[in-house]
Amino acid sequence: MQIEIVPNVNEARSDNFINKTVIVIDVLRATSSIVTALENGSEGIIPVETVSEAKSFNIKNELLSGERYCKKITGFDLGNSPLEFLNHDMNGKRIIMTTSNGTRAIQKSHKAAHVIAGTILNASQCAKKAIELKRDIVLMCAGTQDKFSLEDGLCAGLIIHELNQLQEEEIQLSDFSSAMYLSFLQAKNELQKTILNCSNGKKLCKMGLKEDVIFCTKQNEYSVVPILRDNIMVSM
Amino acid sequence: MQIEIVPNVNEARSDNFINKTVIVIDVLRATSSIVTALENGSEGIIPVETVSEAKSFNIKNELLSGERYCKKITGFDLGNSPLEFLNHDMNGKRIIMTTSNGTRAIQKSHKAAHVIAGTILNASQCAKKAIELKRDIVLMCAGTQDKFSLEDGLCAGLIIHELNQLQEEEIQLSDFSSAMYLSFLQAKNELQKTILNCSNGKKLCKMGLKEDVIFCTKQNEYSVVPILRDNIMVSM
Repeated sequence: MQIEIVPNVNEARSDNFINKTVIVIDVLRATSSIVTALENGSEGIIPVETVSEAKSFNIKNELLSGERYCKKITGFDLGNSPLEFLNHDMNGKRIIMTTSNGTRAIQKSHKAAHVIAGTILNASQCAKKAIELKRDIVLMCAGTQDKFSLEDGLCAGLIIHELNQLQEEEIQLSDFSSAMYLSFLQAKNELQKTILNCSNGKKLCKMGLKEDVIFCTKQNEYSVVPILRDNIMVSM
Repeated sequence: MQIEIVPNVNEARSDNFINKTVIVIDVLRATSSIVTALENGSEGIIPVETVSEAKSFNIKNELLSGERYCKKITGFDLGNSPLEFLNHDMNGKRIIMTTSNGTRAIQKSHKAAHVIAGTILNASQCAKKAIELKRDIVLMCAGTQDKFSLEDGLCAGLIIHELNQLQEEEIQLSDFSSAMYLSFLQAKNELQKTILNCSNGKKLCKMGLKEDVIFCTKQNEYSVVPILRDNIMVSM
């Protein structure tokens, strides 16, 4: 089983995903929010690219969520905070979601055989389910704009670590995958501190969202693995 | 002092290098060969992009060197092997060099305030000289075609480690720089083994060039730091 990593969404080339499982990773905060939403009873998350696309839905039993520049979009029910998702009643509801990088990464993966969402919260189960899908794996780090984000790289390294633990398949790592695996191993005892000090961690702390960052670094807190089916992220 | 990394030469955007010091890194093998050539008495290395450009020089006291697909170019005096450079008489001679990625990375850095060459062989001195140049630093990993190469990333991490040791300036790392620093710290006690097992390491071993790989992983063996002056890499 080959493991590759896309360092940020702008480097995603969708033809490279054919026949593969893409694990979309946006630790701060889109995939963490998606995982939390499903754990908290949501029926599914519909990722859309633009604010106007989100607004164009004929809302019945859905919630609108999303951010731009880390802030909730005016008029939306929810922003992109997993803690907000945790504390909101979303039982049986679907969520229409648009974020700067994470939902775009999901949409760019549309040629993959399978698209699932990976986070620090569900890394162990995510690795287990990815093995079950029996395809080569692309870990797609959403990043921020056209830049690599450390928290996504470390989560990719953690998922590789979990894949290695399972030892059900021989894992072949690309050079970039090896680098992220090494980074995770070095940071693993200080994962929360490292992420609080990376670029997005610092930015969110400055905006008063430190608790969100801390929540997103909880390792293997959840067992749900979101998978894209008919353009909706549902529990696998 | 800000530290950034370009993961491979294809991602280099020359406008980002203005007023900065670019450290070009191509561990396997261009910058390792350049460092070795200067240590072995060469007067300077002229990096050129194409084979025909190399051949167009009016050769007097110069040697032609270069590779394509890791193999010496037909009719050239030298390939791209640092061990070959070590064992060839190049005292007082200039070397015209063209390689697939390393010399291209040097040429793409032309808008920088300073361009120097970094390797595992000269990492400590390279960091020292880069501090003396008093500019923000871009570590440009040459990579292989459009891909990141682990040995270049680990060398970038090593140079960051050396910069930290000097503690003469406050170092601010981009997220990608932090990742490479973490990777290096994790791999540092097995640097040679890690590089022998990465993509280029394995490729060169298969071609019978294991000794070259081993040579290129010798830490701080040399003190020369090549710098680009009037399009020639000379000793700083």
